[in-house]
Amino acid sequence: VLTDPDLKRSFEHDLTGGWSGEALLVVRPADTAEVAEVLRECGSASVPVVPQGGHTGLVGGGTPRDGELVLSLTRLTKIEPLDRSTLQITVGAGTTLEQLQQHLRAQGLDFPLDLGARSAATIGGMVATNAGGQLSLRYGTMRAQVVGFEAVLADGRVVERLSGLLKDNAGFDLTGLIVGSEGSLAVVTRVRLRAIHLARYRCTGLFGLASLEDALRALERLKQAAPSLEAVDYFEGRGLEHVCAHLGIRQPFERTYPVYLVVDCAGPTEPIDELASVLDYVEESAIASDSAGREQLWRYREAHNETVRALGVPLKLDVSVPVGSIPAFTTALRRVVEGLLPAGELILWGHLGDGNVHVNILGAPPEADHLEEAVLRLAVGHGGSISAEHGIGLAKARWLPLCRSENDIETMRRLKQVFDPTSLLNPGRVLDV
Amino acid sequence: VLTDPDLKRSFEHDLTGGWSGEALLVVRPADTAEVAEVLRECGSASVPVVPQGGHTGLVGGGTPRDGELVLSLTRLTKIEPLDRSTLQITVGAGTTLEQLQQHLRAQGLDFPLDLGARSAATIGGMVATNAGGQLSLRYGTMRAQVVGFEAVLADGRVVERLSGLLKDNAGFDLTGLIVGSEGSLAVVTRVRLRAIHLARYRCTGLFGLASLEDALRALERLKQAAPSLEAVDYFEGRGLEHVCAHLGIRQPFERTYPVYLVVDCAGPTEPIDELASVLDYVEESAIASDSAGREQLWRYREAHNETVRALGVPLKLDVSVPVGSIPAFTTALRRVVEGLLPAGELILWGHLGDGNVHVNILGAPPEADHLEEAVLRLAVGHGGSISAEHGIGLAKARWLPLCRSENDIETMRRLKQVFDPTSLLNPGRVLDV
Repeated sequence: VLTDPDLKRSFEHDLTGGWSGEALLVVRPADTAEVAEVLRECGSASVPVVPQGGHTGLVGGGTPRDGELVLSLTRLTKIEPLDRSTLQITVGAGTTLEQLQQHLRAQGLDFPLDLGARSAATIGGMVATNAGGQLSLRYGTMRAQVVGFEAVLADGRVVERLSGLLKDNAGFDLTGLIVGSEGSLAVVTRVRLRAIHLARYRCTGLFGLASLEDALRALERLKQAAPSLEAVDYFEGRGLEHVCAHLGIRQPFERTYPVYLVVDCAGPTEPIDELASVLDYVEESAIASDSAGREQLWRYREAHNETVRALGVPLKLDVSVPVGSIPAFTTALRRVVEGLLPAGELILWGHLGDGNVHVNILGAPPEADHLEEAVLRLAVGHGGSISAEHGIGLAKARWLPLCRSENDIETMRRLKQVFDPTSLLNPGRVLDV
Repeated sequence: VLTDPDLKRSFEHDLTGGWSGEALLVVRPADTAEVAEVLRECGSASVPVVPQGGHTGLVGGGTPRDGELVLSLTRLTKIEPLDRSTLQITVGAGTTLEQLQQHLRAQGLDFPLDLGARSAATIGGMVATNAGGQLSLRYGTMRAQVVGFEAVLADGRVVERLSGLLKDNAGFDLTGLIVGSEGSLAVVTRVRLRAIHLARYRCTGLFGLASLEDALRALERLKQAAPSLEAVDYFEGRGLEHVCAHLGIRQPFERTYPVYLVVDCAGPTEPIDELASVLDYVEESAIASDSAGREQLWRYREAHNETVRALGVPLKLDVSVPVGSIPAFTTALRRVVEGLLPAGELILWGHLGDGNVHVNILGAPPEADHLEEAVLRLAVGHGGSISAEHGIGLAKARWLPLCRSENDIETMRRLKQVFDPTSLLNPGRVLDV
């Protein structure tokens, strides 16, 4: 139990600087039984609880707001032995993605999900937010990787489904429901995950393109010609300029292009030919198949987050639209931001193959409701969602009606009631109640 | 609205002869609005409702028991235009699997799930039961194919999530929850599904093996050597003898083997070499790559159901165990059945790659509770589930505590309350309440 303000601090302020609040105290239980005890005690004392993983979330889902108790799960790091016959592994919710990746790779396996925050993001947090990342195009989001869970309900009772059976239709799908529930239905303590064989060959291409339309053509070609396709991320020339200035490095090509793609192919045979199928649609390219070279190419994309953070506190909005609507959405978005915030700067990147756009607006005032609403409405107007992979958290609870009907929200509200009748678990998150 | 006893009959008796009951009446709405109206009226009049698709279920989930209204969804057969960019398609709940397959195949696509009852089983019923079948090994069960749904709640309100976005974390996963809820949470009216490209080459192998242990070795080899692997089903020599007698055909090989595998490989290149990787572990083999030949090989496996039905009313129990436990489970099962029902006959087949065993016992009396309980306990004792892919329905509601904890069942019971406060939707199904 941490009560010292200095010790509590990192649990009270998120990475972006956008969310912070005082925690009554921070508790760091060591196992499921201790988590259950904390929840029972909080229930008796009517103390609201905010579960927290690696605290890398971007929507205030795990940051205290107003004197809640922060329930940090980072000590639940037990990794159980791999089940070789099913390639499944059960890990504690506090295991980081990187720890899991290293553990699996040492055994010739890999985890079919990756994201930039891997060194701190925990499996429990990734379950809570149904994390996505660059590999979803091929393997799906976190929900597709979770084959079982153990969680503590708000009243301290434990529910466990860890058998990992490939077919198990005994009742309602609580596993899928827990994934993406952002800690507001139950506190995940253990997770059973599927692993995959480590690809023998992997290569990365960085490509400069003339337009988003060309990027979509390149994506379509890759989807048809490259069964080894794993990731198709994108960013823009204006973002790249900031990244290179921030990192103090040169741009990858002589020219700056409007759009860049970072593409990964991986498989049991050398996938460079498959990757090269994209060349008809690109202006310039760099390809690497060694890990240092690959990391260098990905760095241009992955450093966008820290670069934008270094430039100020951005308004960050993670949205998705149908893949084919990305160009039209981007044009309309640029117009909206210019209209509402002439001095602002719009920096975009994301997972092109999933229609997932990370909207970052620099120069927005701290309370930019009108701007936020305009961007989210625009995504929904293009057939999209107000949250692609970051969840709803505190940031978007009030905007949920933009993309979910009244009947839908009322159903979710009742679900919340079932799991957490006293509303002590993650209050005000996901649903604006 | 059907009230005539002769017209109602096929809605009142299931395929197996194991489940039947009188329907107050049978209603066949034409669209979502009519489904909503029926549910509202039933709510006002306190009439319990049993939703029904193709009525091919094997656990009494869609068969009336005691004067319920049968809500047949078979008229909801609208197939909306394919979305080429995402390969997604939205269809009415009453569309049969075969109609969907034919529709997609005419466009060079396919549906990544197949099962023997394809000509009658509806998409709505397959969503309700989270159907499995022979392709789950590669593509997952129905839940993995459903990217959106529209359903009518018990009170007639409609919830719709049909955007089909690849990433959409706006609130709780109602889609996954509806899949597998067996019509007891809501009535599914439209479903958005993912399609896949039709494989250019497909081949089927039928293999005779010396033992289940060899079958597991063959499976392991295929999983490693054949990326094109789609299905690994199995049956036994004693089942094959019945099938051949029933169909009046010769056995595929001169000898009868203890175990047979039916294996499908499919991909953009000829997969016969990959299929042949299994040959080290098999005694005899037949391979076909033309559709007539392939159908003939699959026929030995698929005719098991009708054969067993022709021999009497079998006790049918669909269970799953961890794949590696199939031999031990089978040995123990044989012993249990011999002990409890010396005159009975045990016929087994299933989806080996999923650990999914279809247990059929001939000669069991109509009320064979002790036998049923013994078999289900045995599956759970081997780390398995009382239901792999057929659901719980009426058949297994009372056995759910064998594989779900009290906390788990209590959570599901509350979920049911949320969706259906007056318990008029599919009463007594899934949960024994």
